[in-house]
Amino acid sequence: MKQYITPNPWSVIEEGFHPEENEITESLMSLGNGRMGQRGNFEEKYSGKTLLGNYVAGVYFPDKTRVGWWKNGYPDYFAKVINACNWIGIDVEIDGQILDLHTCQIEEFYRELDMKRGVLSRHCTAITPQGQRVRIESERFCSMVDDESGAIKYSVKALNFDGHITLTPYLDGTIRNRDANYDETFWQEISKETSFAEGILTLETKPNPYGVEQFEVTTGMRFDIKKNGKKLDFQSHPVKNEKYVAGKVVTEISEGDELTLFKYAVNLSSANYKREELTEKAKNYLDRITKKGYSSLLSEHELAWADKWERNDIEIVGDMEAQQGIRFNIFHLQQTYTGEDESLNIGPKGFTGEKYGGVTYWDTEAYCIPFYLATSGKHVARNLLIYRYKHLAKAIENAGKLGFSQGAALYPMVTMNGEESHNEWEITFEEIHRNGAIAFAIYDYINYTGDKVYLAEYGLEVLIAISRFWKQRVNWSAQKEKFVMLGVTGPNEYENNVNNNWYTNYLAVWCLKYTLSAIEYVRSQEKADAIFAKVEFDQEAETKDWQEIIDKMYFPYDPEREVFLQQDGFLDKELKTVDQISEHRPINQKWSWDRILRSCFIKQADVLQGLYLFEDHFDQGTLRRNFDFYEPMTVHESSLSPCVHSILASSLGKKEKAYEMYVRTARLDLDDYNNDTEDGLHITSMAGTWMSVVKGFAGQRVRDGVLVLNPYIPEGWDAYSFRIGFRGITMRIEVTRQAVIIENPTTESVEVQVWGKQYSVLGEVRHELKGAAAE
Amino acid sequence: MKQYITPNPWSVIEEGFHPEENEITESLMSLGNGRMGQRGNFEEKYSGKTLLGNYVAGVYFPDKTRVGWWKNGYPDYFAKVINACNWIGIDVEIDGQILDLHTCQIEEFYRELDMKRGVLSRHCTAITPQGQRVRIESERFCSMVDDESGAIKYSVKALNFDGHITLTPYLDGTIRNRDANYDETFWQEISKETSFAEGILTLETKPNPYGVEQFEVTTGMRFDIKKNGKKLDFQSHPVKNEKYVAGKVVTEISEGDELTLFKYAVNLSSANYKREELTEKAKNYLDRITKKGYSSLLSEHELAWADKWERNDIEIVGDMEAQQGIRFNIFHLQQTYTGEDESLNIGPKGFTGEKYGGVTYWDTEAYCIPFYLATSGKHVARNLLIYRYKHLAKAIENAGKLGFSQGAALYPMVTMNGEESHNEWEITFEEIHRNGAIAFAIYDYINYTGDKVYLAEYGLEVLIAISRFWKQRVNWSAQKEKFVMLGVTGPNEYENNVNNNWYTNYLAVWCLKYTLSAIEYVRSQEKADAIFAKVEFDQEAETKDWQEIIDKMYFPYDPEREVFLQQDGFLDKELKTVDQISEHRPINQKWSWDRILRSCFIKQADVLQGLYLFEDHFDQGTLRRNFDFYEPMTVHESSLSPCVHSILASSLGKKEKAYEMYVRTARLDLDDYNNDTEDGLHITSMAGTWMSVVKGFAGQRVRDGVLVLNPYIPEGWDAYSFRIGFRGITMRIEVTRQAVIIENPTTESVEVQVWGKQYSVLGEVRHELKGAAAE
Repeated sequence: MKQYITPNPWSVIEEGFHPEENEITESLMSLGNGRMGQRGNFEEKYSGKTLLGNYVAGVYFPDKTRVGWWKNGYPDYFAKVINACNWIGIDVEIDGQILDLHTCQIEEFYRELDMKRGVLSRHCTAITPQGQRVRIESERFCSMVDDESGAIKYSVKALNFDGHITLTPYLDGTIRNRDANYDETFWQEISKETSFAEGILTLETKPNPYGVEQFEVTTGMRFDIKKNGKKLDFQSHPVKNEKYVAGKVVTEISEGDELTLFKYAVNLSSANYKREELTEKAKNYLDRITKKGYSSLLSEHELAWADKWERNDIEIVGDMEAQQGIRFNIFHLQQTYTGEDESLNIGPKGFTGEKYGGVTYWDTEAYCIPFYLATSGKHVARNLLIYRYKHLAKAIENAGKLGFSQGAALYPMVTMNGEESHNEWEITFEEIHRNGAIAFAIYDYINYTGDKVYLAEYGLEVLIAISRFWKQRVNWSAQKEKFVMLGVTGPNEYENNVNNNWYTNYLAVWCLKYTLSAIEYVRSQEKADAIFAKVEFDQEAETKDWQEIIDKMYFPYDPEREVFLQQDGFLDKELKTVDQISEHRPINQKWSWDRILRSCFIKQADVLQGLYLFEDHFDQGTLRRNFDFYEPMTVHESSLSPCVHSILASSLGKKEKAYEMYVRTARLDLDDYNNDTEDGLHITSMAGTWMSVVKGFAGQRVRDGVLVLNPYIPEGWDAYSFRIGFRGITMRIEVTRQAVIIENPTTESVEVQVWGKQYSVLGEVRHELKGAAAE
Repeated sequence: MKQYITPNPWSVIEEGFHPEENEITESLMSLGNGRMGQRGNFEEKYSGKTLLGNYVAGVYFPDKTRVGWWKNGYPDYFAKVINACNWIGIDVEIDGQILDLHTCQIEEFYRELDMKRGVLSRHCTAITPQGQRVRIESERFCSMVDDESGAIKYSVKALNFDGHITLTPYLDGTIRNRDANYDETFWQEISKETSFAEGILTLETKPNPYGVEQFEVTTGMRFDIKKNGKKLDFQSHPVKNEKYVAGKVVTEISEGDELTLFKYAVNLSSANYKREELTEKAKNYLDRITKKGYSSLLSEHELAWADKWERNDIEIVGDMEAQQGIRFNIFHLQQTYTGEDESLNIGPKGFTGEKYGGVTYWDTEAYCIPFYLATSGKHVARNLLIYRYKHLAKAIENAGKLGFSQGAALYPMVTMNGEESHNEWEITFEEIHRNGAIAFAIYDYINYTGDKVYLAEYGLEVLIAISRFWKQRVNWSAQKEKFVMLGVTGPNEYENNVNNNWYTNYLAVWCLKYTLSAIEYVRSQEKADAIFAKVEFDQEAETKDWQEIIDKMYFPYDPEREVFLQQDGFLDKELKTVDQISEHRPINQKWSWDRILRSCFIKQADVLQGLYLFEDHFDQGTLRRNFDFYEPMTVHESSLSPCVHSILASSLGKKEKAYEMYVRTARLDLDDYNNDTEDGLHITSMAGTWMSVVKGFAGQRVRDGVLVLNPYIPEGWDAYSFRIGFRGITMRIEVTRQAVIIENPTTESVEVQVWGKQYSVLGEVRHELKGAAAE
């Protein structure tokens, strides 16, 4: 755990340079706009600890799979979002010596990510090994408006010397991925050109033997320089190297002079443009943004962020660190995925690092969709669903590779293009509950938005394919006289290859039921026959099979404790609680894998994940008994775990536990709780933090088309408010110790239930709180 | 399956060149002498399909582990036997053009491994692209007497041309391992020298970050040349390149001339000599063997082989292919491990290929020790046991890495130096039955040899450490009110991470019992207190714990079928037999891993492995019921499987099944049954083939110090005989359709039981057969 970040309601601030934590700071201060993103690297050379990261959304490389022992069915490659052309680089030379803060004495240093404005800035006074005192100021952003571009304002001031300063803004494609499986580079050069204060570099991902699309990305830059605030008349010397272009500008300066470089950059990808037009489009794009100029670009960008906060913000009164934590989470979620492009998704590290390959996991459906549903308008969540719809054929193919047939689909554990990338059998082949999360997201979306039309348009095909998978994946146990599901891994990855994981069995049956009800609904629609014909649906036989599984599925249960059992044999374990092994934690660092597996300790919600998703199927006693049985055995070593427990604890009135779990998730990265922030941020779990507040503390649900709230305030907070979009209307909901205040600024009323009382909200509605709710 | 090898009782013969199968032939025709070995590569350059392989026993490299997803507890490196300096190479140039059979037209070709003499020879007539007809004859061996050396006789005859022939015998260290994890080379040069008709090259394994010993190997060569049978007066031009030395000899020849090169080579390793003495020792060694000369070296070598066959041979009358198969197995076992060095062991591929790293598996204890016990004198098996004794400290350390303590030992799954090399959690951490095999080998050795002294000397320490492991590895199931063993992989690797694998549970309890009885025995010995003090043995508490586990261990059982269950939940599977999935076989190539895991299909004996080892613990009905239940579900996709089934089938009187299983193992490599002979031979399973005959068909056991035989003859054989060493006496046992004839050539009598009747055998004893036994 690290706590060097200055608390502030709107900013992430590093006061004084922390070179040892630089890779953490770079992660925390990452910028993005949904199309491109980058870590908070310095513009000038830095030879100390740093992980350079520039990413272009949707651009990836199929890196050859690395395994110890190949298993049949493994994918040949791991599709990873790759470090792309470095567009922020500016080399600074002072009298021929390159400026590198790692070799300087730092007199003063300040770095700030302003989350309200989406701007990263830095100022610093340094003394070079040659004794020159220089002042560096930089500011940059990835435009939320012109979302294929970014801009930098970078100043160097000579504090104690005369001489000459060379500024070399460059584009550099000689970059690497630190996590390349075989230490290979992924880019090759296609073309480059330079002209006055301009450089254009087109790179292409290297050829691959897997038939995966090669991407071309054209990165362009232009720059301008001011001296002491006035436009400088300068000469730009072009530099061209392999995968590198730059413009070199040498300027005579005297003590007190300040040079300010404005660098504009664009990243256009062949995912969005014809290859042959990339260079021209990049130049046009540069024309457009340089015409706007730095200040206009920046103010448009700030306005876009203001609008986002208007729809997203959570205010917490009385707890600065909680306030900073929640905004940090919202900020990164919003800059990772904007929902405008249905071919994109949310990588677990977003644009903040390389780990996990930057591709799509079940996190999207289970954690992110609820966030985007409530904060970003219907089409954003819808695009995330369509993303999976478009991958349906690949999911059917993927299931085929594992021996399934007749239109059964198994969605990949990790993917970029619909093909499986993950290669660890216990997860790749067995963590099949992901299929259920994808079905659940359809339900969730329709329940939240009321958009039942989605079923006939896209949803049903996915549901049928998933149900077909479950049908083939279960088998009849002659001994149990029930259907069983053997050899699975549940969400708790600290168990592998178990039989009858309760969560997976429950989810499978739910999928079958939901598919049957969806069929029932769609059958009344015009499109029904066309869909059935398309997927060659044998209505009578298939629905009969599914109903049989629904009726005769086996669920492990302990009649003595009256709890569901995570899997067969769970009670053969030595049952201990986490507080009995405190010196052994985190067990994933201190224990061997086999010891973890045979222990009772749980990585993340498993039975409880099911109770969280299907809360309304169970009575309070059942929820409570299972929570009380499993939570004390849970080590929460997945970032996705605490939020689920926090929400469940909230709904069970376990406020202390709820807050404890909230704290674990809210500042996970800011405080480097898991000692891995340097790899990048836990983007998808950030949605869970948001849910811990809105679904947890505020008890937000949607039931029968009505927005439901059962709010309380964690001890130590005075009040909190959040924005929530529901059925096209963004409301502000404020919870104080006295009342819940709902503001609907539109002219249309919304039904909202607070603590069981229903309101038609138009303008402001105030629900007084007393007793339990106020505590 | 391939059948291009000519059947022959004593030889492996390739008639006519089969370039497509060349890597298979190279495997089949590998030579070795326990100290060094090599594949049947050509001496001259060959640009076609070939896997060059030269190996020096005990010399390995810690290749950096390659994993997809690192698990806590994985080893950092995989210790692999590595391709060493190529000492057989002889470049042949005809009028400046290098001779390469791949580019020649082959008029005649014949390659033979003479197993009786341990000699590989080849003759061949080829026409070069330039039209020169040449006759090549070569012969070589790795001396069984001077076991750090080998010799080659290599002739080239000009059939239709005059000109000059250049012969360049060389030593080449620029070799690679095809299976290097990261495509790295493993050798660096230390020194080299050349003088007339001599070259010395010293290589060292590259430095490693794991603290693993670097090996130096000095390879030396001398050569001599005859022309038309007469000593040639020649000049040798030295060639020195990076990791390469050679002597180049250019000779004028006329049509009909024949040049014959004699090449002598030695391989000395720092495992056996001081580094600084390697070069000198190599020269001395060369002096010694060249003084002997080729013919003497060869005849000494042939005598050594004759002696081996005297103690090992199995003759089969009436089935040439079976005869060839069994001798092939015996030959390779004898040249892989001679038992003279307790630091060596038996790699699964011996000196015939790179796969599996060439290191020690549980195969040694479970399969090879019975073979060497019966064929090679007591000290050979004893050295194999001491090998593990010497690794005990590492096994305790290894267990410590996985969280075990207080002297518990977990022997590695794969090792070279006692450290674990394997990195697949389901095997590395969970296939713990290997510990039991190591304990069983101690029992087996003592039972066979009567050498109980071994217990106090070495055995007990190992047994106590293994028992301590089992004690810590089980846990009490409150639900079952029994001790259980969770999260294991049994010998059937088509199940992973199961609970209560019957075989492992049974073996663990047996280990505890045997350790208790060993303690009881050793307690009466002088050394007892010293051993107990050394291992800090708490006699009262520990034996009490062990007894409790013995008394209360859980064994999965099906009361309906009256069979042991392979593991918990086995009956939840869909039970099918192998004949129902014939088009899906081999399932390890046609099914995804998860499908294999959740199927009922068994890779290799598991419950039956236990019944095989502990046959006497069970009645015939139990053996039969379990055999009849499991064998039909067994796909035998491990080379170690058929032999166990063959032996069990023999003892159950299932003669057809026994023979079917025997055939699968006996010519596994000769006929390339599993399509993988090119990777090298299945050395350890060859011991199983031998056992299928001796323990299977001949029903050989040792009970209460008496050699027991219950022989029968497989249909299609007329008779068979084998040699067996027992308590210091090598007997010949012949089984004909009329009688069992036992010949004891010594002056000391041996107790032998044949079909229940006991004989004191001295000279020849004849037991007439009738009825069941004759069939």
